[in-house]
Amino acid sequence: MRHAEAGAADSSRWPDDRQRPLTDGGRAEHARVAEALRQMGVRFDRILTSPLARARETADITVRVYGNAPAPEPTDLLGDDAEPARTLEALAQMPAETLLCVGHEPTLSRLAALLVSRDGRARIEMRKSGVAVIECAGSLAPGRGLLQVHLRPEEIVRLLDGVAAPPAPPSPDLFLGTLTAYQRSAALRGALDLDLFTAIGRGHETAATLAERCRASARGTRILCDYLTAAGFLTKAGDTYALTSDSAAFLDRGSPSCVAAAADFVYAAEIREAFADVAATVRRGGTVMPAGGTVAPEHPVWVRFARSMAPLMRVAARAVANMVEADPARPLRVLDVAAGHGVFGIALAERHVRAEITALDWPGVLEVARENAGAAGVEDRFRAIAGSAFEADLGGPYDLVLLSNFLHHFDPPTCERLLERVRAALTPDGRAVTVEFVPDEGRVSPPQAAMFSLVMLCSTPAGDAYTFAELDDMFRRAGFSKSRLHAAGPGGPQVIISQR
Amino acid sequence: MRHAEAGAADSSRWPDDRQRPLTDGGRAEHARVAEALRQMGVRFDRILTSPLARARETADITVRVYGNAPAPEPTDLLGDDAEPARTLEALAQMPAETLLCVGHEPTLSRLAALLVSRDGRARIEMRKSGVAVIECAGSLAPGRGLLQVHLRPEEIVRLLDGVAAPPAPPSPDLFLGTLTAYQRSAALRGALDLDLFTAIGRGHETAATLAERCRASARGTRILCDYLTAAGFLTKAGDTYALTSDSAAFLDRGSPSCVAAAADFVYAAEIREAFADVAATVRRGGTVMPAGGTVAPEHPVWVRFARSMAPLMRVAARAVANMVEADPARPLRVLDVAAGHGVFGIALAERHVRAEITALDWPGVLEVARENAGAAGVEDRFRAIAGSAFEADLGGPYDLVLLSNFLHHFDPPTCERLLERVRAALTPDGRAVTVEFVPDEGRVSPPQAAMFSLVMLCSTPAGDAYTFAELDDMFRRAGFSKSRLHAAGPGGPQVIISQR
Repeated sequence: MRHAEAGAADSSRWPDDRQRPLTDGGRAEHARVAEALRQMGVRFDRILTSPLARARETADITVRVYGNAPAPEPTDLLGDDAEPARTLEALAQMPAETLLCVGHEPTLSRLAALLVSRDGRARIEMRKSGVAVIECAGSLAPGRGLLQVHLRPEEIVRLLDGVAAPPAPPSPDLFLGTLTAYQRSAALRGALDLDLFTAIGRGHETAATLAERCRASARGTRILCDYLTAAGFLTKAGDTYALTSDSAAFLDRGSPSCVAAAADFVYAAEIREAFADVAATVRRGGTVMPAGGTVAPEHPVWVRFARSMAPLMRVAARAVANMVEADPARPLRVLDVAAGHGVFGIALAERHVRAEITALDWPGVLEVARENAGAAGVEDRFRAIAGSAFEADLGGPYDLVLLSNFLHHFDPPTCERLLERVRAALTPDGRAVTVEFVPDEGRVSPPQAAMFSLVMLCSTPAGDAYTFAELDDMFRRAGFSKSRLHAAGPGGPQVIISQR
Repeated sequence: MRHAEAGAADSSRWPDDRQRPLTDGGRAEHARVAEALRQMGVRFDRILTSPLARARETADITVRVYGNAPAPEPTDLLGDDAEPARTLEALAQMPAETLLCVGHEPTLSRLAALLVSRDGRARIEMRKSGVAVIECAGSLAPGRGLLQVHLRPEEIVRLLDGVAAPPAPPSPDLFLGTLTAYQRSAALRGALDLDLFTAIGRGHETAATLAERCRASARGTRILCDYLTAAGFLTKAGDTYALTSDSAAFLDRGSPSCVAAAADFVYAAEIREAFADVAATVRRGGTVMPAGGTVAPEHPVWVRFARSMAPLMRVAARAVANMVEADPARPLRVLDVAAGHGVFGIALAERHVRAEITALDWPGVLEVARENAGAAGVEDRFRAIAGSAFEADLGGPYDLVLLSNFLHHFDPPTCERLLERVRAALTPDGRAVTVEFVPDEGRVSPPQAAMFSLVMLCSTPAGDAYTFAELDDMFRRAGFSKSRLHAAGPGGPQVIISQR
């Protein structure tokens, strides 16, 4: 796989051309190419990449789109001055069934040529974001490969556009659907209040039986169930309703993976109020709520947050814990800043038996974290510091400092001030592990991260969803040596690991 | 291109194996492959084929799918005993820009190998229905070709299937997206309040220039524009924003088809309040708002409705007027019940020069309808009756009675009572023309009609979106002889025309 579109070399912007990033268009196109490859059934169990920024970014996008994919391994074997014959020899030694190599021209087309023709003179074009799939019987060697698939992004994108988006006549449907979108939220909140999903999960399937179970009217239950069916939460056959597999997993309170409680925070009155007048908020450039919105000291929404978000965050917390490598023979002292429910620290304690967690948050919030630590059986390795992350004595030194969904509440200078405190609390080889909504450089994708920025505009004086470049900059200014962005699959948490 | 799947040789069925046809599966698969190639932009201006039945059939399917393609030319150069080097020499003499060759293995992969590598030993697999696209600079000769694209049907079919229905891992995304859906409505309302779409339509394209034009902060404007881009209302290239074609047509107040005003009703505070507690509403089986919700006499929301919905309804009203046939030589007396903005009656007056409209509604609402009739130049054929559709003297007789978006506010007995009054006001061959949200019998599709039912549950004591069977039943009970459902295209208004 050749790296995606990265524009032209420009020594005024990137004195070291190895740092030249992908363009926004290149990122978007590559995400589509990777998604197409995934759907085509093209698989890999290792991914090697050139160490140059444009190749690494290409590999990162690929891994994010695939989900559950191994982390990219940078290697000079695929660098821009790699020698194909030597690279092939080295690749032949690597234990892997299917190897995805992300690199540059002309190395890649020469490598492909070498594999499929003994003299290495076959002419195979590798466009940016282009891919060649070559199968070898036995070990990799010149002429042993058989070219199976060879693609350029032009064709894939045209195909996807042709299939996915039939030419639509002009329509006000998006406008009307968006204006009435609040009704979807309200209907879902109503269904959770009635515990309708749990009732359907127990087998009360018609509007009449469900109404009895939920102590509601049959007419209202029927209309709500039909609405939820049209909205994708239920299925209907004849007069009987059933849960979709997602609703069964996440909204039935009998399911161990139920996350329904998250509605108490995500749809909290305090957050909804923040959206009462978006125009006034945009005029001001920050929340119009009193006293700094949700970042006011000891704001009660954070106790609600801690109580309601733990189930939803547990999956993400485990994914983050798995991304953090640590020597099992040594203690791992962890500070969990603005710990909330505490599950990010708790997941680390579960994964690393020698981890010791210090959770920092408002006193009322810490009670919830302490309960969760007890339920996970890690209370003997769980301590707490009550107070503000900006003022409390952080103690330490720590091997790791967790910053989960915290930086987005503040402006960059405030973040930098906090990061300086964090850095001072780390051991010399300590790391900060930041979990964030990280939009791409263009700030309009992926949707969840891009759209989160408005939540911060409406609910805080100066918060934002920061791009990786912005976060990287904050960490550098605070004295950290380097930061890397990791993603645990599509929709999974985005994590920045920064070396002190 | 290799021929499609043709099963195994079977001398009992095809003593001459050259006559063996494609299998049904092979035909179907090849049609999909050809369609994918067409969408990918792969073009040819001549198509040569092996004279064998399975290759000719493959070429025929390809030409049929492409449409407007040249007829296949059978040639022994691509037969099952063709000699690749000789074939290449002969092809080089043919006058054609792009040549599609349909044939057999091993000839085709050898031909491809000869083109892309001088010694002809490159190993390129050609599956059945597989394709290799090779570009040659100058005339065809060994080693002159550059392999551009190489595909197997497996991947293409998986991609096409995947695009239609990607296998999704269990995910709480629909839950979270629905909980936060109210933010989409609020953001759109904010953008309309700032008149942001009009500002972008005028060419103020970066957050900084737009902020100045809208008297807002640059930071807030940037965050809102990014949000609206992710939500599908804008596009973004670099730092500049532009309207999508739908936003340009419907949300820029400079556009003659702008319907932005509809937000004043669709997102009206009165309607939003009705969704404040969906669970309580479902328990009760009807609105929990005081005094019967929006159907209370002279409820002020209907003046707002009349003022704001006219632009949105004009397209639908013209479609309905076109569905109503009438003798142009005779007068057409029309009663427009609960006329609101009056545009359904006005559209009939515009289409039928002898139509005379009598609009019935609350006095405050009629003022708006009268203004609209004046603006359309039909005020001399426009009269009004102020009052309730259930109590006012309807006058008449009428040739047509219009019932646009009215019946859904009431329960069936109330509708029947009204329809009896309507029938009594019609001439013997008169018709009722009902514009409604009509869900399918299963009540969960189409989404807009199915989901409208909840709006009625929340905002009225007993209203509903009725299926055609239910409406037909009400009309019959009220004495109408027959009703028929008409639809003006997907997304267009659904209309029931009932004969007295």
